[in-house]
Amino acid sequence: MTLYVNLAELLGARIENGFYRPGDRLPSVRALSMEHGVSLSTVQQAYRLLEDNGLAAPKPKSGYFVPASRKAPALPAVGRPAQRPVDISQWDQVLELIRAKLDINVIQLGRGMPDVSSPTLRPLLRALGKISRHHDMPGLYYDNIYGTQALRDQIARLMLDSGCRVNAAELVVTTGCHEALSASIRAICDPGDIVAVDSPSFFGAMQTLKGLGMKALEIPTDPITGISLEALELALEQWPIKAIQLTPNCNNPLGYIMPEARKKALLTLAQRYDVAVIEDDVYGDLSYTYPRPRTIKSFDVDGRVLLCSSFSKTLAPGLRIGWVAPGRYLERVLHMKYIGTGSTATQPQMAIAEFLQAGHYKPHLRRMRSQYQRGRDQMIDWITRYFPAGTRVSRPQGGFMMWVELADDFDTLRLNRALLDQGVQVAVGSIFSASGKYRNCLRMNYSAKPTSEVENAVRKVGVAISELMTQTD
Amino acid sequence: MTLYVNLAELLGARIENGFYRPGDRLPSVRALSMEHGVSLSTVQQAYRLLEDNGLAAPKPKSGYFVPASRKAPALPAVGRPAQRPVDISQWDQVLELIRAKLDINVIQLGRGMPDVSSPTLRPLLRALGKISRHHDMPGLYYDNIYGTQALRDQIARLMLDSGCRVNAAELVVTTGCHEALSASIRAICDPGDIVAVDSPSFFGAMQTLKGLGMKALEIPTDPITGISLEALELALEQWPIKAIQLTPNCNNPLGYIMPEARKKALLTLAQRYDVAVIEDDVYGDLSYTYPRPRTIKSFDVDGRVLLCSSFSKTLAPGLRIGWVAPGRYLERVLHMKYIGTGSTATQPQMAIAEFLQAGHYKPHLRRMRSQYQRGRDQMIDWITRYFPAGTRVSRPQGGFMMWVELADDFDTLRLNRALLDQGVQVAVGSIFSASGKYRNCLRMNYSAKPTSEVENAVRKVGVAISELMTQTD
Repeated sequence: MTLYVNLAELLGARIENGFYRPGDRLPSVRALSMEHGVSLSTVQQAYRLLEDNGLAAPKPKSGYFVPASRKAPALPAVGRPAQRPVDISQWDQVLELIRAKLDINVIQLGRGMPDVSSPTLRPLLRALGKISRHHDMPGLYYDNIYGTQALRDQIARLMLDSGCRVNAAELVVTTGCHEALSASIRAICDPGDIVAVDSPSFFGAMQTLKGLGMKALEIPTDPITGISLEALELALEQWPIKAIQLTPNCNNPLGYIMPEARKKALLTLAQRYDVAVIEDDVYGDLSYTYPRPRTIKSFDVDGRVLLCSSFSKTLAPGLRIGWVAPGRYLERVLHMKYIGTGSTATQPQMAIAEFLQAGHYKPHLRRMRSQYQRGRDQMIDWITRYFPAGTRVSRPQGGFMMWVELADDFDTLRLNRALLDQGVQVAVGSIFSASGKYRNCLRMNYSAKPTSEVENAVRKVGVAISELMTQTD
Repeated sequence: MTLYVNLAELLGARIENGFYRPGDRLPSVRALSMEHGVSLSTVQQAYRLLEDNGLAAPKPKSGYFVPASRKAPALPAVGRPAQRPVDISQWDQVLELIRAKLDINVIQLGRGMPDVSSPTLRPLLRALGKISRHHDMPGLYYDNIYGTQALRDQIARLMLDSGCRVNAAELVVTTGCHEALSASIRAICDPGDIVAVDSPSFFGAMQTLKGLGMKALEIPTDPITGISLEALELALEQWPIKAIQLTPNCNNPLGYIMPEARKKALLTLAQRYDVAVIEDDVYGDLSYTYPRPRTIKSFDVDGRVLLCSSFSKTLAPGLRIGWVAPGRYLERVLHMKYIGTGSTATQPQMAIAEFLQAGHYKPHLRRMRSQYQRGRDQMIDWITRYFPAGTRVSRPQGGFMMWVELADDFDTLRLNRALLDQGVQVAVGSIFSASGKYRNCLRMNYSAKPTSEVENAVRKVGVAISELMTQTD
């Protein structure tokens, strides 16, 4: 399904490695098609992906070239985290990010908040309202511990798009993806156990490890291809790892989609070392490419992958509706879900089920994906314009968040303090590392429509960075 | 505040111990008032409580007597659970209870489901609907990790009624009382730790201990005065107990309200042995007496009590809104709440805050309390009529659930199997014990209006019990 991604990855590596230089003409579509035994359209898709990544530019009637002076900033470096399991810290910094009030005067460039102002969400609100007016008041009752049947049916259908064949009975609806991740981890691990994570990695999932007394082993992660399988294998060889926890699709915070071949290879590793895989797919439906990428879960044959997701990024986080497809760990996860929250709230489940069933989800996704893709390009443009030279930026393939890397000695904690008075906040990089690395990085949200207010906020961040850099000099 | 409860307890004990015999005249109101230095109305309240418990009967112009033949069934015996910490079992039986579909053809006499059909809930549904129509769609956003400010303000005000002075900043809103209990336990205990619990005890809280790898030490519990302080002290002396977990107000499943003096004494014990107290107050607002009973938390001076509650029993469980006042454990509980579910759903919090703020809560409570009190009397009447002689029944002082004790060798698991075809289910007693005791007991819900359908369901249970007893003979 994603032959083109593999091809793009190969060409991209050659360009990055200088095999093709700026200004060089790239091989023709026909030549690549013959060389790799793939269709012309596969090559064209690969080129479009390279274009998205700023690695190739088309010239009418002449084919593709390496951009002479690549306008876009360079990619972030591959992280080099500590190669040993560590206790996770940074809770105070996470708390600072999440306890920020919903203050309309502060532009939160750091939060994982989607745009919920789209008119394509109206039918969802109508459905919520309708349930409140229903004379039987179904929203007031305890739900089935597994979740509402109608919603699980819809989720099972949805998961076909990522190549997953699970039925409703294999799903547990949860209070957001948080509970899915938390119940999964508790179903598999005991305090003191080691979990391998991508690095940088979603801070929420890492705080769960911290809260439950587990240790994280951060694996170096490439900003285009994802978690390093070589480093992962070495870690599996060396440490008694219980589970691998990662976000392979539209990764948070880097935005890459892990190539399919690497997903399969990761699963093979998990099988060989008999570890569970906790796959966070919460941004998967927001992939800019169509069809949406497959999940590792879709290749799972022995139920070792626990797929965790939610509607928090695709619809709205305030509803707190997520799910987990826990494979062979179903009974344990169900127990953990029960002790965590009893059952999941009934009304939002019913409303989402109705929204999906009536066919409103796909049009909404299409709209948001294209808004977010434009938002990405706009944000790269602004960063290029307003941030100091040398700033590195990831090329998200989906979702609405971007990873920005500044000079090695820059401290984003100081940046956020400087921005406090100016009504802007970003997510500091250190919360994405178990050991507090990435202090020179930050995560930026581009979900909001690119208004002049947002541009102004980004400009303020850029100015503050420049000022702090001057002070350091 | 509850002098009369202490007096009633003292008189009740004398009656139960045979100091006053059936047919005996009890001391006059005036005499008791002088003897105990309390007002006449306090003595009258005490007598009304004894009347409710079937221990005293008024004769016009002659005062109170011990009922000649007490019509009501005897009280359940005090449990004699194993006096050592045990790993908790019975998850399969709990699962059977909670995974029961919301099948309108099955009368669920076992579930902890309040009556949500009261017209006094209408304003809540209207508030839910209104938020859906709000053009800013506030219900779609992530909430503050602590919970919506407006709701915390209302909860802080509400808690004054139970003698608690906490402010909104000391509260964390949770996804039902389940999350409050679960976050509290995780904030205090590690796997392997011992928690003392009342016995019988709420199965949900015990499954939380099980899921987190803790051990429960069941303390004998009196069906009128609650957990035995003598047994508790012995246990604290003997074992390294980390926390005491109990439901002192309108206990689930026994229905007693622990006398105030005993609440204070328990807190003193907790202080002396330096253990935390996890107080489940989820039924406290449904006390049949006014003013509602105080919580142990209301006497807490050093922040060792974590008060857990929710609107699941007073308003509606499907909303999944609870809270915790975690005292000195606030930061830890907040972290546990974050890793459990991120934040709590926004819309139901806003709706409940509006419902409370507009003054709809108290009238709703008054209505439900009186409905449930009538339901209790009706249920005792039905059980007296339809259950075999010798059946023992608790005298709930609030809430909507009753504990029923059958002959020692009776097995309620067999009862539920026999009832499956008949469209009735009860909660088997063994799930209320860490070690699977109370197999001869069951919990019955009397929240529904006492229709002939419910009566018929209770009759079916009685007939099935009688039949099973005959088979055993």
